[in-house]
Amino acid sequence: MTAAPPIASSSVLEPLIAPFDRALDIAIRHRGFPLNLEEAIRYATGGGGKRLRPGLLLLSARAAGGNTIDAMPAAVAIELVHTFSLVHDDLPAMDDDAVRRGRPTLHVQTGETMAILAGDAMLGLAFEVIGDSPMRAETRARLVTELAAATGSMISGQVYDTIGGFPHELADEQRLAILHRGKTGALFRAACRMGAIAAGAAGESLAALTAYGESAGLMFQVTDDLIDVEQEADHAGKATGKDAKAGKLTYPGVHGVEASRATVERLLADSRTAIAPLGDAGRELITLAEDMARRTR
Amino acid sequence: MTAAPPIASSSVLEPLIAPFDRALDIAIRHRGFPLNLEEAIRYATGGGGKRLRPGLLLLSARAAGGNTIDAMPAAVAIELVHTFSLVHDDLPAMDDDAVRRGRPTLHVQTGETMAILAGDAMLGLAFEVIGDSPMRAETRARLVTELAAATGSMISGQVYDTIGGFPHELADEQRLAILHRGKTGALFRAACRMGAIAAGAAGESLAALTAYGESAGLMFQVTDDLIDVEQEADHAGKATGKDAKAGKLTYPGVHGVEASRATVERLLADSRTAIAPLGDAGRELITLAEDMARRTR
Repeated sequence: MTAAPPIASSSVLEPLIAPFDRALDIAIRHRGFPLNLEEAIRYATGGGGKRLRPGLLLLSARAAGGNTIDAMPAAVAIELVHTFSLVHDDLPAMDDDAVRRGRPTLHVQTGETMAILAGDAMLGLAFEVIGDSPMRAETRARLVTELAAATGSMISGQVYDTIGGFPHELADEQRLAILHRGKTGALFRAACRMGAIAAGAAGESLAALTAYGESAGLMFQVTDDLIDVEQEADHAGKATGKDAKAGKLTYPGVHGVEASRATVERLLADSRTAIAPLGDAGRELITLAEDMARRTR
Repeated sequence: MTAAPPIASSSVLEPLIAPFDRALDIAIRHRGFPLNLEEAIRYATGGGGKRLRPGLLLLSARAAGGNTIDAMPAAVAIELVHTFSLVHDDLPAMDDDAVRRGRPTLHVQTGETMAILAGDAMLGLAFEVIGDSPMRAETRARLVTELAAATGSMISGQVYDTIGGFPHELADEQRLAILHRGKTGALFRAACRMGAIAAGAAGESLAALTAYGESAGLMFQVTDDLIDVEQEADHAGKATGKDAKAGKLTYPGVHGVEASRATVERLLADSRTAIAPLGDAGRELITLAEDMARRTR
């Protein structure tokens, strides 16, 4: 086990972390949760998360002509959904992971019962945060639909990954694509779309940010798979080499390490192309994609 | 184990069951879920649930001057949240129950991994169903907030029940009240309020239905505790006598069986009083409360 990794993984996220963390903290407190539940949620959401999804959401809002203050409740909501999924994925009946972000996973820290319930509470809270935010009702309803649909896709990906159930006669390449689109792709795509929606964007801006989110999300997952193969556990802050041991489909496992590296470069180029219609407004998202492509944990 | 109990527990719910079940079925299909996940959700939501919460919601909508068709997505959503909570509560790390509604619980049927994920998917789907329903955006946003807040209260009650964490120096009576308000009360209250909100009601109607939901919800829980003490497992269709064995707080355990029966009568009277301002429009809800007071499973 090692110290928690640095909080921000990109210079464009850095200034957003402190205001985001404050908003997240406020959203968790004063809900009337039992103190032990509140502490469990704070433990799971803290601890040096990269805040990539809320960061993507906030930068997408800005790129679409909105501001990060209005989009903050949506950013809090997507991080709550992401964290809920990590907590449940780590459970003994799931991936059975003991370390996350260099610290004991929630069920190791608090017991399995609390980890299940805290995950459930975070998922519900995500929608409460959007529902009672000061955005226009139409915007809130669209954000709820977007986040809920992405949550369903993410869980579907997790089912394929841990249990199986793929339609018959799919090659590994196709299975892998379905897996990635669900497991991480859906939430990355939703982050960018929710930022655009919070900013009141539609049409070309929304389409550009959707395409960007799809490319960047897949790039993130391929990078993640590469880290799992190449890095030592101490550096990554979580168990590594585990996917291969578990016989799971991974990008390097199916396509090889060299092809995976080339795919990262291609997806980085796709991300740039996708965001091009937004001109200068998309510059921060290009920097973020570049930083994501180069991350080592 | 015995056959599933009869579907409707009240004559006023009976005509609502078939249209509700159709709406629920449609909401689960065509979401792009893996087939095994869809089947797990259908297994959990089927099997002779009493449909009390969606029934309360639909009758509340009607009592508030609305109709059951407009309120149907909200009814589907609350049943999904209720079923998610049953599936997770039954897990080995929670109440560890093997039988529910006279059938194997979901984790016994499909394994624990799927039961966790199917529960998660149902919770997310609940909000998706509201989010993409044809109701006005303002109504959808209010319903989301209402349901999400109730979900948080329900989970809080479950934390108190399974883990503890009550504030210090509370007598058993007070702990029990907090427990019931969360575990079942929150969702009953939300059912009635969401019906009213779906019907566009506010002010006195909303207040009357809120008060009715609080009384009827507590009455349901006290009845449930009495069934656990008094009935044989074969008749109840689930494990009974289990709360006492687990040392859990129950109404008869704290107040005694006779006092619990008297409380049911008092809460039935409270339910009638609460709904009185709605006049004839509240008659179905009074019948439902009477049927709930007399249920034996």
